[in-house]
Amino acid sequence: MTNLVASAMARATTALLDADLQLAEGVITADETVDLLRNEIEERSFDIMARQQPVATDLRTMVTTLRIVADLERMGDLALHVAKVARRRYPGRAVPPELHSTLLEMGQVAQRIVAKAGSVIAGHDAALAKELESDDDTMDALHRKLFHVLLETEWTHGMEAAIDITLCGRYYERYADHAVSVAHRVIYLVTGKRF
Amino acid sequence: MTNLVASAMARATTALLDADLQLAEGVITADETVDLLRNEIEERSFDIMARQQPVATDLRTMVTTLRIVADLERMGDLALHVAKVARRRYPGRAVPPELHSTLLEMGQVAQRIVAKAGSVIAGHDAALAKELESDDDTMDALHRKLFHVLLETEWTHGMEAAIDITLCGRYYERYADHAVSVAHRVIYLVTGKRF
Repeated sequence: MTNLVASAMARATTALLDADLQLAEGVITADETVDLLRNEIEERSFDIMARQQPVATDLRTMVTTLRIVADLERMGDLALHVAKVARRRYPGRAVPPELHSTLLEMGQVAQRIVAKAGSVIAGHDAALAKELESDDDTMDALHRKLFHVLLETEWTHGMEAAIDITLCGRYYERYADHAVSVAHRVIYLVTGKRF
Repeated sequence: MTNLVASAMARATTALLDADLQLAEGVITADETVDLLRNEIEERSFDIMARQQPVATDLRTMVTTLRIVADLERMGDLALHVAKVARRRYPGRAVPPELHSTLLEMGQVAQRIVAKAGSVIAGHDAALAKELESDDDTMDALHRKLFHVLLETEWTHGMEAAIDITLCGRYYERYADHAVSVAHRVIYLVTGKRF
């Protein structure tokens, strides 16, 4: 699921920046697979819980799993929202030139964060979870930069572009938040320490 | 929790529309109580699961509870976000006169939806859960109306107000989505039917 939602956001970002309709449609269609995987993992978790009646750490692991797949599914939705902005504006471009590099960087930070969240799931690396927080700070700074350009510079791209940028900014920021939350849940499970 | 997040969104809406700083601060502070309640319910749920090892329906009930409190906590966050917009713009008003009634109605629909979600939690009323969906459609229509005013009319209130309206619109819409999700989870638990 982590790989799928990572790929979804990477492709959604390209679709957004290059006004690539086919890529956007691909992201929108592929989100169903993420939803199906979530349902499948949930059903299997219930099945395991019902048959094996896990206690203590095992029980916490199961419940944490259910939460993590909820976060990951939501990250897929957010990538889909970005793709839908790209599709709605096609053949136009949603992102004006002066914000191209900022959005590109938000896409790259999203990739970095989700890749690290995946590694935390796989390897329970608390140091990596810490890194994720500084990546999230970078995302927040980029998010503020969008508002700075919208508010403090001469905006000549009209209201529709302003709305799209505002919404996309929020989608990337929430995507990063969920990835951080995934990492925190894993570390809390493993170490018992809340961040 | 349902009552608290209902009250939070009601007060946040008034704070937003009346530029009431004190009310906004109250909503922001009160959100801690919602977060504490969520933690408390989670801990008690884990405790029950560990001691009593519920199976089948009981287990599903526990897991559903954990999901519902996550939805409710998020609804509290969204009310807090609306209150923060009110605070950021104080002593100015975030909502221009021509959108006052639309935002007021979004606040009222949010109240209706969360009240019904609370009744579904209390009474497992599937018919009420169905009503919630039509309320959610009303919310989506109001949300589209915001965009219509932003895009199709002569917007004279500047970029900051446009961003605030875009973000607040999203907060109300997501708040309603989470309330619908709460009702669906309860009904799925009780009837085994997905909506």
